[in-house]
Amino acid sequence: MARGRGDPRLQRGGVLIGPLVALLTDFGERDGFVGAMKGAALTVNPDLRFVDITHDVAPRRILEGALILRSVFEHFPVGTIFVAVVDPGVGGERRILAAEVAGRALLAPDNGLIAPLLSERGAERLHAVVEARYFRPSVHPTFHGRDVFAPVAAHVALGIPLSALGPPVADPARLEVPRPRPIDRGLAGEVMHVDRFGNLVTNLTEDALAAFGGRGAVIEIGGREIAGVSRSFVDGDAPLKAVVGSWGYVEVALRDGSAERLLGAGVGSAVYVRTSGSAA
Amino acid sequence: MARGRGDPRLQRGGVLIGPLVALLTDFGERDGFVGAMKGAALTVNPDLRFVDITHDVAPRRILEGALILRSVFEHFPVGTIFVAVVDPGVGGERRILAAEVAGRALLAPDNGLIAPLLSERGAERLHAVVEARYFRPSVHPTFHGRDVFAPVAAHVALGIPLSALGPPVADPARLEVPRPRPIDRGLAGEVMHVDRFGNLVTNLTEDALAAFGGRGAVIEIGGREIAGVSRSFVDGDAPLKAVVGSWGYVEVALRDGSAERLLGAGVGSAVYVRTSGSAA
Amino acid sequence: MARGRGDPRLQRGGVLIGPLVALLTDFGERDGFVGAMKGAALTVNPDLRFVDITHDVAPRRILEGALILRSVFEHFPVGTIFVAVVDPGVGGERRILAAEVAGRALLAPDNGLIAPLLSERGAERLHAVVEARYFRPSVHPTFHGRDVFAPVAAHVALGIPLSALGPPVADPARLEVPRPRPIDRGLAGEVMHVDRFGNLVTNLTEDALAAFGGRGAVIEIGGREIAGVSRSFVDGDAPLKAVVGSWGYVEVALRDGSAERLLGAGVGSAVYVRTSGSAA
Repeated sequence: MARGRGDPRLQRGGVLIGPLVALLTDFGERDGFVGAMKGAALTVNPDLRFVDITHDVAPRRILEGALILRSVFEHFPVGTIFVAVVDPGVGGERRILAAEVAGRALLAPDNGLIAPLLSERGAERLHAVVEARYFRPSVHPTFHGRDVFAPVAAHVALGIPLSALGPPVADPARLEVPRPRPIDRGLAGEVMHVDRFGNLVTNLTEDALAAFGGRGAVIEIGGREIAGVSRSFVDGDAPLKAVVGSWGYVEVALRDGSAERLLGAGVGSAVYVRTSGSAA
Repeated sequence: MARGRGDPRLQRGGVLIGPLVALLTDFGERDGFVGAMKGAALTVNPDLRFVDITHDVAPRRILEGALILRSVFEHFPVGTIFVAVVDPGVGGERRILAAEVAGRALLAPDNGLIAPLLSERGAERLHAVVEARYFRPSVHPTFHGRDVFAPVAAHVALGIPLSALGPPVADPARLEVPRPRPIDRGLAGEVMHVDRFGNLVTNLTEDALAAFGGRGAVIEIGGREIAGVSRSFVDGDAPLKAVVGSWGYVEVALRDGSAERLLGAGVGSAVYVRTSGSAA
Repeated sequence: MARGRGDPRLQRGGVLIGPLVALLTDFGERDGFVGAMKGAALTVNPDLRFVDITHDVAPRRILEGALILRSVFEHFPVGTIFVAVVDPGVGGERRILAAEVAGRALLAPDNGLIAPLLSERGAERLHAVVEARYFRPSVHPTFHGRDVFAPVAAHVALGIPLSALGPPVADPARLEVPRPRPIDRGLAGEVMHVDRFGNLVTNLTEDALAAFGGRGAVIEIGGREIAGVSRSFVDGDAPLKAVVGSWGYVEVALRDGSAERLLGAGVGSAVYVRTSGSAA
C-alpha cells in the first residue's frame, strides 16, 4: 500500500498531518481500555490521529462489530488504518490479521470481524501478525488491544509494510451473516441490529425486495404490517415505517419513537416480506 | 468570516494546524454514525480536527441539544466550525442552515437547534445549505449527518464561504424555551435538563430571582424547600442545594448524590421561587 | 520538566505536532462538560491534541478514577499532560495539584486521585495551582474543569513550568486503597472495580498470592471456588476463571458472559484466597 512507501505521513501542499487510525472495539468507554490503547500507540508514533468508530459493540458480538465496521469503511479516506478489536479469543490460538483492502489497512482478530469486507471487496494483501518486535515488549494475555494491536498500528503508520508483520494468510475466518430464507410467497428475515434510536436493522436488502414488489412490498414484524418501503423517516403518514437505511438494509422505524420498544423486538426477531395483496 | 479568506488553515507562528470541527448530535456512540461522519469529512479535508461536544442528546430532543450547544459555544475558539445534528425532520422539507455567529461557523437543521444562539448573539451571516456540489455525491435520505453536514463542514474548513452554500435566510425557525411564569408572590419554573450527576437544571436565571430576594430566595421543588441559593455544591451544610450552575440557570443538586433520584424529578418537573418568609 | 524548556511543542524530524492532553473525569459524555473543557483549553492553546481516558468514572468515586488513571499512566508518552477531574469538593477549600511524575504532567484535585501515582513513583515536582492568571478570567465555582483545569493544562502545554503555577506542596492527600487482610490460612480481599465486561477486579495482586500457592491458589467468591489462576480468559475449560488482569490485580471473569451478573457481585464484594487443599 502507498503508506508503506516514502514518507509515511500524508503530505499535501506542504502540510504534514498525522496518519489516521480508526478504532472499533467492544471495550466500552468506562474503564480506560481505549485510552491505554491510544497511549500505547502514541508512545510508538506520536503523530497519530484517532477517530473512534465505536467502542460500544455489545461484548463479544462479532457480527455487530462486523456490520458497523462495514458500514463506515468506505467513508474513511484511503490510507486510514482501521483497528478492530472484538476479540473473545484473546490470549488463545486465534490469529491476528493485517489486511489491505481498497487502499486502507485493517488490523483485527481472525474471527470473522473483517470477513464481510474481505469477501465483498477482496484484499490486496492479507498477513498474519506475528512479528513481536512490533508489539509492546511485555504482552499481557488479556489485553492485546493495548499490547499488540495499538503498537502494530503505530508501526504501520510509520511505514512498516504489512508483509513485514508476518506470513501471508489464505484462509481467513468466515462470518455467518444470517440470510433471509424463502417462505410461501415471501421471505423470512430477521433483525440483526437495533440502533440507538430503536430502529430495527434487518437482513433484508433492497435487492431482496425486488421479487416481492420492490418498494411496494409488505413488511411484517411483531404482528404488524407495513405497506411499502418509505424513502425517509418523515415520508408518508404512518408512524411505523420501513426504510432502506444508510447501511443498505431494510430498517423498521417508528416516527418520533422507538420501534424496538413499540414492537418488543430485538436482535433475532423475525421479519417477513410479502407481495402486497397476498394473505399474511 | 475570516476563515473564508486567505489560507483557510489557522496559522500562528509558522505552525499549521487543522481547522476545528465541534460536533453535537443525538446519534449516540454505539452504531458508528459519528465515525461515519468524521470519515466522510476527512475524505474531503484530511486536515480536520474534531471535538465531540456530545452525541447523547436524547433522541430528537431539540431543546436539550440547543441548551448544551449554547452552554459550550463561547468556550470554543473563534474559527471553530460547529456541526449540530438533532434532526427528526431529516429527509423532509426542513432547511439546513449555515450561520456565522461571533466568528464561529454553525451548521444545523433549521428546527430551532441554533435558535437561542441566533437570537441572543445575532448572525453575521445566515444561509441555507443547498449547493449539492459540497455534499457526498450520493445523499441517503436518512443520514444527512454523513452525506451533507460532514462534507459541507469539511468544505467550509477548506475556505468555501458560507455564502457559496446557498441563498441567505431571513426567517430561521424559532425555539420554544419554556419561560417561568409569575404566580402569587413568586415564579413557577420547570426543570429543563437533568445532568449526569442528577442535578436538575431549571429555567430560572439569576436575574429572575432578583425580585424575590436574589440569592436569599426560597426554591421549592418536589415538596421540599431550599433556603437560599448557594455559591457552590459544597457551600453550607444542607445536603440539598440550589446553585446558579455553569449554564447560568438555577440548578438543584444533592451533595454526594442525585437530586433527580431523591426528588423523583425530571424534565418538566415544576419548581417555584418565593421570597423568604412568604407562605409556601 | 523538559516541556518547560525551549519550544514547548514536541519536535521530531522537523514535524511539529501538538502537545498531548489526556483527560479523565466523572463528567459523563451527555452534557457537553468535556466539550466545554476542550474548547476552553483550545482557546488558550489551539495546538492541543486530546485523548479521552474515560469520562465515565462513577460520580465522585475517587478510588475508581485513581485506579483507572494508574492503569493507563505508563502507557502514555513522556510529555503527556494528564488532566484528572473527579472533584466532589469543587468550589470548596481543596487544593489543586500540578505534579510531574516520570516525565509526564498531572493536574488533579488534591483528594487522593493521583495519590497512588505519587506514592508509587514519586514526583519530580509537586505544586499547588493558585496563579489565577492561568485560569479563565471568570471562574465558576461549580466548574473548575472548564475554568481552571483546562486553561492551566493549555498553559502548561505552552511551556509554563509547573513551578509558576503556585507554591510547592509537601503533603498531598492520601488515598485509602483497600488492602487484603490475613484470615485463617488465607487472605480476604474485595472487589474494587467492575469493568464493562462484568469482570470483577479485586485488590489481590499476584504477589499477594505467593504465600498461598501462587497461581495454584484457590479463589473463592460468591460461594464459588475457582481452582487456580488462569493465564488468559480462554485458558482451560472452566467458564468461571480468575486471571491476573492487565491492571495487575486478580480478576474474576466468566467466559462469554458477565461474572458480575453470574455472581451477583459488585464493588465491595468479598473475595478469598486459600491454599489449594485447605478447607473453605
